[in-house]
Amino acid sequence: MADDTLQARPLASYPGRHVVATRWSDNDMYGHINNAVYYEYFDAAINTWISSHLTVGFESVPVIGIVAESGCRFHNSLSFPGLLTVGIRITRLGRSSVTYDLGVFDSHAEEDTLAAATGHWVHVYVARETGEVVPVPDVLCTAMDQLITKDN
Amino acid sequence: MADDTLQARPLASYPGRHVVATRWSDNDMYGHINNAVYYEYFDAAINTWISSHLTVGFESVPVIGIVAESGCRFHNSLSFPGLLTVGIRITRLGRSSVTYDLGVFDSHAEEDTLAAATGHWVHVYVARETGEVVPVPDVLCTAMDQLITKDN
Amino acid sequence: MADDTLQARPLASYPGRHVVATRWSDNDMYGHINNAVYYEYFDAAINTWISSHLTVGFESVPVIGIVAESGCRFHNSLSFPGLLTVGIRITRLGRSSVTYDLGVFDSHAEEDTLAAATGHWVHVYVARETGEVVPVPDVLCTAMDQLITKDN
Amino acid sequence: MADDTLQARPLASYPGRHVVATRWSDNDMYGHINNAVYYEYFDAAINTWISSHLTVGFESVPVIGIVAESGCRFHNSLSFPGLLTVGIRITRLGRSSVTYDLGVFDSHAEEDTLAAATGHWVHVYVARETGEVVPVPDVLCTAMDQLITKDN
Repeated sequence: MADDTLQARPLASYPGRHVVATRWSDNDMYGHINNAVYYEYFDAAINTWISSHLTVGFESVPVIGIVAESGCRFHNSLSFPGLLTVGIRITRLGRSSVTYDLGVFDSHAEEDTLAAATGHWVHVYVARETGEVVPVPDVLCTAMDQLITKDN
Repeated sequence: MADDTLQARPLASYPGRHVVATRWSDNDMYGHINNAVYYEYFDAAINTWISSHLTVGFESVPVIGIVAESGCRFHNSLSFPGLLTVGIRITRLGRSSVTYDLGVFDSHAEEDTLAAATGHWVHVYVARETGEVVPVPDVLCTAMDQLITKDN
Repeated sequence: MADDTLQARPLASYPGRHVVATRWSDNDMYGHINNAVYYEYFDAAINTWISSHLTVGFESVPVIGIVAESGCRFHNSLSFPGLLTVGIRITRLGRSSVTYDLGVFDSHAEEDTLAAATGHWVHVYVARETGEVVPVPDVLCTAMDQLITKDN
Repeated sequence: MADDTLQARPLASYPGRHVVATRWSDNDMYGHINNAVYYEYFDAAINTWISSHLTVGFESVPVIGIVAESGCRFHNSLSFPGLLTVGIRITRLGRSSVTYDLGVFDSHAEEDTLAAATGHWVHVYVARETGEVVPVPDVLCTAMDQLITKDN
């Protein structure tokens, strides 16, 4: 898969940031953070950012973001213990879907440090009750503007 | 990401099969299996298949497969409880790397049922001690031949 | 904690059985199944058993079992890959709460093999909307009778 | 199980503290943090604390702490998103084993706030290569003194 969006980028590329505390259980038999766990980090980063712009909790929102596609390229291994920074930017904000681009960094990374792992993530918005595809809620669109970057 | 390898395929496309028992903790707040968990299924399927062709355990193999890239497209949601079938095929067997193509199905799927989720997964083989990239072990290459499909 | 209910018992002690497929991500840095993962097995075993006696899915039941307390003693380590058997019995069925006693075994265990890990688990039933403690649903009480053992 | 060590205690009881960032995947179908995840928090808290007193990483320590027993009582539910504080104290430091007592709190908890969940955790030290039970390493015993509390 020749997906240029997964090239390693510097921390400065990502206007959004989320701090993750690694867990003992994140490491696998080889002593590094298991690949599947990076997707837990992405999920935590994106949804924590979203929740900070919602006025109600996830348990009662009528419109929900469903993951349609995700991907990750692993450039350098990371390990428990310690903190990580997940960088977040939006590369495409469509009528009903949002494409995020993510970078995972050691918490000591400088702004020009390249990501240890880079991800992409597509959310599609649907009505919770019916599953019908609906527009991204206005309150989120407005907030998402600050995460959109032009340099993709 | 226009990645044709993630199109939904029928179970019959996958020469390898692995059964997964879902867990209560696999479901997320929305009552469906969390996206990150599909990568646990892929990891379990591929490594269980590999282990069946190794004469020693993962804790003592000198050459290990590191995940360089993974991705998943989610076509239909699945949920705990119940069993799932992960279909496995290999679309590229290089000197040092292997690209897997995976499909996740309800355990009642017929051979012509389309996958609820499709994944890709790139393993790169490295020497455990040095991290140096090395050829895929011969014993695995031979076994992998049975998972290679031409129709990609 | 001198908790006699956590003594290793033979597989034959457990009238209920649930098969677990281990995952690569279950193993920790030391190459054995991480302690927290045993609780995922307990959760999967108990809830799969419960769901087989419900006429509606967990997403719509009006009365839900909340975990009030859990515990596990680890007698011998287990590892991915392979299948495990979780044995289930009920040691106390109260008006609103149920105490389960669990044993984790390699899938090749004989009926007189002792558990590699033993757990206890207390579910309290509450009304989903209000959180008020309510009686265990009749349909479950009847089914639970077959898991009650006298020898505790 | 009448285990008095699992009574809810105030944050002030715990000399050690560890901050956890919750993850979307921590919540279960009922919208609360899944019971098994609390054990991931305990593991992260204890091992992060231990690692801060070790001069080598977990991948190369010759003596390792194995979980012999764990348990948790759930007093109030907690949910993603947000931060949590895990309080840590030691109630028994034996020749080869250490018993931890843990409390999980919302990150806004005051010193007199009672724990939402309380855990206990027994580590037994063994030689990594042989599995033989060995004394708790001196460097850890010294550090552990600051976590021992008398009020159990």
